[in-house]
Amino acid sequence: MPELYDVAAIGNAIVDVIAPATDAWLDEHGLTKGAMMLVDPGQSAALYSKMAAGVEASGGSAANTIAGLASFGGRGAFMGKVADDKLGEVFAHDMRAIGARFENAPLVGGPATAVSMINVTPDGQRTMCTFLGASVEFTDTDVEADIVEASKIVYLEGYLFDAEAARRAFAKAAALAHGAGRQIALTLSDSFVVERHRGGLLGFIESQVDLLFANEAELLALFQTEDFDEACEALRTRCDLAAVTRSDKGSVILSKGERLTVKAEPVEKVVDTTGAGDQYAAGFMFGLSRGRPLHQCGQFASLAAAEVISHYGPRPLVPLKDLAASKGY
Amino acid sequence: MPELYDVAAIGNAIVDVIAPATDAWLDEHGLTKGAMMLVDPGQSAALYSKMAAGVEASGGSAANTIAGLASFGGRGAFMGKVADDKLGEVFAHDMRAIGARFENAPLVGGPATAVSMINVTPDGQRTMCTFLGASVEFTDTDVEADIVEASKIVYLEGYLFDAEAARRAFAKAAALAHGAGRQIALTLSDSFVVERHRGGLLGFIESQVDLLFANEAELLALFQTEDFDEACEALRTRCDLAAVTRSDKGSVILSKGERLTVKAEPVEKVVDTTGAGDQYAAGFMFGLSRGRPLHQCGQFASLAAAEVISHYGPRPLVPLKDLAASKGY
Repeated sequence: MPELYDVAAIGNAIVDVIAPATDAWLDEHGLTKGAMMLVDPGQSAALYSKMAAGVEASGGSAANTIAGLASFGGRGAFMGKVADDKLGEVFAHDMRAIGARFENAPLVGGPATAVSMINVTPDGQRTMCTFLGASVEFTDTDVEADIVEASKIVYLEGYLFDAEAARRAFAKAAALAHGAGRQIALTLSDSFVVERHRGGLLGFIESQVDLLFANEAELLALFQTEDFDEACEALRTRCDLAAVTRSDKGSVILSKGERLTVKAEPVEKVVDTTGAGDQYAAGFMFGLSRGRPLHQCGQFASLAAAEVISHYGPRPLVPLKDLAASKGY
Repeated sequence: MPELYDVAAIGNAIVDVIAPATDAWLDEHGLTKGAMMLVDPGQSAALYSKMAAGVEASGGSAANTIAGLASFGGRGAFMGKVADDKLGEVFAHDMRAIGARFENAPLVGGPATAVSMINVTPDGQRTMCTFLGASVEFTDTDVEADIVEASKIVYLEGYLFDAEAARRAFAKAAALAHGAGRQIALTLSDSFVVERHRGGLLGFIESQVDLLFANEAELLALFQTEDFDEACEALRTRCDLAAVTRSDKGSVILSKGERLTVKAEPVEKVVDTTGAGDQYAAGFMFGLSRGRPLHQCGQFASLAAAEVISHYGPRPLVPLKDLAASKGY
């Protein structure tokens, strides 16, 4: 099987609604700052009516990562489920317009395309309330075997652990990928997701994951500890390669043989942290797919994360390829 | 009748799809830079498939003006037609979320909510292809008489001159407004609109318009001249007050007694000129409704225009009230 893609990702196909909010507004509506909370259609409508005026942009964690990869000049494919409605059309358009493959048929006669209401506080932190809609209808029949087998890395979005059908899709993708000699990457996505599925996630990581992405909170939740170094050591024994992000403290890359610390790229003003982890993963996997050494993968990762947090919206606004070239990476 | 609103506007209810484009791309697709072109559903779909990945934001010229007015702390109302679909919901949400009144019932069983595909070139110029959808179904029965009669200024969007039903709605609004001692303002919107409806527009301006907004190209098209000063004099005899915008050359305010020149507010980098004229009108009418002298109305106008062209999207991202306060206006 020839390598057609650098990364094929499976994730929730979501359109973001992004609006400014205050800390007091979050408190008033019972929202935990920085977290992702799932809402039903009724809660979604009620919350939306209280939100400030916003903008809409294609999002979804793994889809953002594929957008970042494409922006570096990488070849990406995405698998996920939209509905046959306007926002589904927007999502598919944006995916294809950046040069990524997205061919899963839209869901007909079911729930609407998923929407995430992202409230951004003045400190740049994003708090998300997500109506998963059509995106949870993704099943193992939507996994495109030929694409999985033709991709260097198959990247799985941890948010999907909430849906049993998606966990089966992950198992199928992992079996296909490893059968073709490909690598499986996973992002833990959210510390509450980790709390909900700790056992399942640990089992999946130990048996299937070659490369893990996590932020500090997610890593600590996974190993139920408050000691960062202890959690890093626990992780190192469980997967070949991992990258743990720590906001402005940069990131730590863990492999069997080494532990590297990568600095965060300086940012003039943090506007909106939405997509920071997604873009970190994009840069890291772009470097990896091009055979770069780990510290350079970390540099690509930090650069992409810094770009996305300096403006509203979850995807890069300037070509990351040009940005990397301007830095001499 | 008490004054409930500073400005009530009638315009197309449109959601913008904004994406970057090159000059070569515009040429390739036969688009005239800086203009607004109407497209049918087929052309709309074909063009969208060629556009870059974008973001969606509530737009519509007069609706943007009401958003700007609200951002200054003014009281605004909007009348226009959306469909009962997701983008119609987004448009209505954004209008109400900024504190403006918008109560026209969505269209059921007709065309979708209007969408404008806005391609922004590196020089910040926007080129628009608009599918009017539900917005052209606005008729005189949608004019809310009590709102018109309770607003200091009734602001009409020139784009609506393309639809006969909307021209009837304008006539109704003008009669109601003048009957209640209110003022009618009109924006010429686009030089191609002026070319299409020169006679009708001149007649409407002479008989009904108290305050006219135009840019230089629209003014020259209206009087079929290339002499700016001649066009200004021709305009001055036809309406009590007018403001003519000239991009970075600032603007000219024409009243029976005087001709004022207002400087453009300096902008570090022009990112996207979408909404510049709309925000100019917002600032000007905010000043006017608060009884400010004309040169101060022009300062509010220039400030609002400068804010909106310094970022992507047609509406202010920071409260114009705070911006004005920081300037001591």
